[in-house]
Amino acid sequence: MTVEELQQRLRQFAQERSWEQFHTPKNLVMALAGEAGELLELFQWLTPDESAEIMADPQTAVQVRHEMADVLAYLLRLADVLQVDLLSALTDKIAVNGAKYPAELARGTARKYDQLGKGDK
Amino acid sequence: MTVEELQQRLRQFAQERSWEQFHTPKNLVMALAGEAGELLELFQWLTPDESAEIMADPQTAVQVRHEMADVLAYLLRLADVLQVDLLSALTDKIAVNGAKYPAELARGTARKYDQLGKGDK
Amino acid sequence: MTVEELQQRLRQFAQERSWEQFHTPKNLVMALAGEAGELLELFQWLTPDESAEIMADPQTAVQVRHEMADVLAYLLRLADVLQVDLLSALTDKIAVNGAKYPAELARGTARKYDQLGKGDK
Amino acid sequence: MTVEELQQRLRQFAQERSWEQFHTPKNLVMALAGEAGELLELFQWLTPDESAEIMADPQTAVQVRHEMADVLAYLLRLADVLQVDLLSALTDKIAVNGAKYPAELARGTARKYDQLGKGDK
Repeated sequence: MTVEELQQRLRQFAQERSWEQFHTPKNLVMALAGEAGELLELFQWLTPDESAEIMADPQTAVQVRHEMADVLAYLLRLADVLQVDLLSALTDKIAVNGAKYPAELARGTARKYDQLGKGDK
Repeated sequence: MTVEELQQRLRQFAQERSWEQFHTPKNLVMALAGEAGELLELFQWLTPDESAEIMADPQTAVQVRHEMADVLAYLLRLADVLQVDLLSALTDKIAVNGAKYPAELARGTARKYDQLGKGDK
Repeated sequence: MTVEELQQRLRQFAQERSWEQFHTPKNLVMALAGEAGELLELFQWLTPDESAEIMADPQTAVQVRHEMADVLAYLLRLADVLQVDLLSALTDKIAVNGAKYPAELARGTARKYDQLGKGDK
Repeated sequence: MTVEELQQRLRQFAQERSWEQFHTPKNLVMALAGEAGELLELFQWLTPDESAEIMADPQTAVQVRHEMADVLAYLLRLADVLQVDLLSALTDKIAVNGAKYPAELARGTARKYDQLGKGDK
């Protein structure tokens, strides 16, 4: 399914259950952050290397996939309710970030844009 | 752009800056949750009604759009690194949720699936 | 128990289980945010008024109390590992906030400090 | 200051600014999670080893201390509004966790309590 089709499915899912009353932007943002928290819990005790192998365990892989789907679900619902075109918002944001983080200055560093090119830290 | 094109752009963006070293699944999950936190901050003092009008203020609307784009960016990067097909993961999750929340039992209630049909609460 | 006694209990709890290896600051911050996410989930579908009555249901009250305890536990562990004196950090922060949010300018508004006194919004 | 004194200071701080209207439990939980998100952002690109040295940089140390203070501030406000005795809630939770994670079974593993003693994973 496409993003638009998924948004329509999620909207219909909410309508069939009279859940629009719960889907205020405020509540959807809380739910999105709650799902991000569940994702954190799957990774919190892993080393970075272990985190790269997390999908090797089939049971954990299912959980990761489900939590990622939950985050996406609430993000799409929020975008639907606020009438934000998510993909175009991201396209714009990538352009903004490209200007904030020029490749030659940002290469190999995790500094914030306002700290770039300030000498070694 | 499509989801796949955005993922490719984000991958290339990271490669051009030698940022793959920072983009472990563990770190990306933290960054995703951090962006969800910034979204929370935009909504935390609003009433539910005010939250429904948040896009009416042009300056705040830009911030909301940017934070939503950031959440999506890290979710797409994470999916790319873990080789998860996000849209298909969500399609599957909607089916799972449909079984857990039958419309007739879940109508008008925000109860968790294991509390459905247990009488008034 | 006092804050210091609780920190010592938590340190001992970790030592008895050889959990210090997992308690890096990075991991503890993830765990703290994960518990904050669980707290969000208890409140996400409630209206503000309902949230004020959340302790009236004994079963939910236990959950709220437990999640709040979990947040505190990881915050105290983090402070212990980083050797931060939490109570004195908060005392200092209240002074900082008092200067950023003068009562006469901040009264009745949820604006950020850099937007105070800028006329109606 | 003690926990009780800090709670009283925070209550008075809110009263002087007529902020009680914003301090519903729902909003305070969002603010708490938002501050946890800011803490995540300080640690997200660090390796676990780097995270253990985060206080070595004086400027970053101040930020960490402030964000930890902010998390504590909202946790104390929430406890005050919900009339939860935080320190006693944590004392109780440690006892619960001691039963869920017996030292001999939990030693050296980050598994959840329902996966303890199930052989190697």
